[in-house]
Amino acid sequence: MKNIVVLISGGGTNLQSIIDGCKNGTIHGRITGVISSSRHAYGLTRAKNAGIETKVISKYKYPIDADREAALLDALNEFQADIIVLAGYLSILPKEIIAAYRNRIVNIHPSLIPSFCGDGFYGLHVHEKVLEYGAKVSGATVHFVDEGTDTGPIILQKSVPVMDDDTPEALQQRVLVVEHELLPRAVELLCTDCIKVDGRKVILKEEGEGK
Amino acid sequence: MKNIVVLISGGGTNLQSIIDGCKNGTIHGRITGVISSSRHAYGLTRAKNAGIETKVISKYKYPIDADREAALLDALNEFQADIIVLAGYLSILPKEIIAAYRNRIVNIHPSLIPSFCGDGFYGLHVHEKVLEYGAKVSGATVHFVDEGTDTGPIILQKSVPVMDDDTPEALQQRVLVVEHELLPRAVELLCTDCIKVDGRKVILKEEGEGK
Repeated sequence: MKNIVVLISGGGTNLQSIIDGCKNGTIHGRITGVISSSRHAYGLTRAKNAGIETKVISKYKYPIDADREAALLDALNEFQADIIVLAGYLSILPKEIIAAYRNRIVNIHPSLIPSFCGDGFYGLHVHEKVLEYGAKVSGATVHFVDEGTDTGPIILQKSVPVMDDDTPEALQQRVLVVEHELLPRAVELLCTDCIKVDGRKVILKEEGEGK
Repeated sequence: MKNIVVLISGGGTNLQSIIDGCKNGTIHGRITGVISSSRHAYGLTRAKNAGIETKVISKYKYPIDADREAALLDALNEFQADIIVLAGYLSILPKEIIAAYRNRIVNIHPSLIPSFCGDGFYGLHVHEKVLEYGAKVSGATVHFVDEGTDTGPIILQKSVPVMDDDTPEALQQRVLVVEHELLPRAVELLCTDCIKVDGRKVILKEEGEGK
C-alpha cells in the first residue's frame, strides 16, 4: 500500500477529500503525514481529527531557506512518502525534492491549464482573472509537478461552466466541487500504478482496463 | 430580419450549420451572401445549393491588398451585412472593416480560448498542439472579432474531452460537432439582439429571458 504525504497551507478541503477517499476505500493508499507551511492552517485540525501525524514547516520556524528545505526532505523521509500531494500548498518545492519524486508529486490547479495558470495565478485570483477575461468555461487540473509553475504533465482535467452573474467566490465553489472529485481520483490512479507518463502525455489505465 | 454574410475559405461545414439553422427556423435571420477567399472552397457549392449569392475575393483575383480590401467592403455593402460570420475564413480582416462592424463580426475557434489560440493556431494545427501538450479537455469558442488574433470578447464556449488515443483528426471531428452547435446559437443570439457586450464580458439573454 502506497504512503501518501499531503502538503497544505490553508483550509485543506482537498486534503479532506483524500482523507475521505482513504477512509471509504476509493483510494487504496494511506496518508502517513500532513505537512503545513503555516501553523494556522485549518487542515492541521482535519489531519488530527483523522488521527494523521502532522508537521509544520514554516518560514517562521525555519527562516533560512536551506534549513526549511532540509526539514521538508527529512519529514518526507520520516513519513516514507511514495506520493506527495500538493493540496493548496502555497510554497515552492525545492528542485531537489522535485527531482527525487519525479512523477510522484501531484498538484491541483483551479483552472483548465494552460489557461489562467503560471506565476501569480493561485486561489481566488485565478477565478477573478477568468471572470475579467470573460471566459465561459473554466475547470480544474491535476498535474505532475515539475520545475516550472503549473507546467508539468496533466493527469486529469474537468470543465465547469462560468455563469454571467458569477462572482469569483461563486466560481471558486463550483470549481472546488470538481477539485474534490479529480484529486482523489488522481491519487487513486497513482496508488494503483494506473498512470503511464510519456513525455508530456499522461496515459491512464482506469480500473477494469487491467494494470 | 438581420442580414448575415458568411466568410469562408474551405469546406464550409460551419457555413452549412448556419444555412441549416436559417432553413429550419432556429436562426431568425437570412444569409444574403457568402464570400470566399478561395475559388476552390467547397463552401461555395454549399451556398449555391442553398440559392445564396457568392463572391470570390482572393489574392489571386486582387493581388494588391488595398484592392482586395475595397472589394470586400463593397461586397459587404452590397449584401447589406448586419452580421458577419467568419466560418473557417483564413484571411485577416482589414482594420477598417473590424471597426465598422464592431461587435457584429463573430469567429469560431476550435479550442477553449485563451488556450491554444493566437497567431499560428488554426485548423488541424490547433488539435496537434492540444495533443502535444497533453491537455485532457479541449473545446470550441465563438467570439467577437477585434484587432487581435482570437482576442475578442467570448460569446460561447463548450468543452469536449480529449482521449488518450486521440489523433488530431479524431479530436477535430469531436470539436466540430460542438462548433456546429455553438456557431448557429451565437448567430441566433445576435439576430435576436440577445447579446450585451460590457468590456470583455458578453452577457447573454437567452430566449425566454425577455429582450
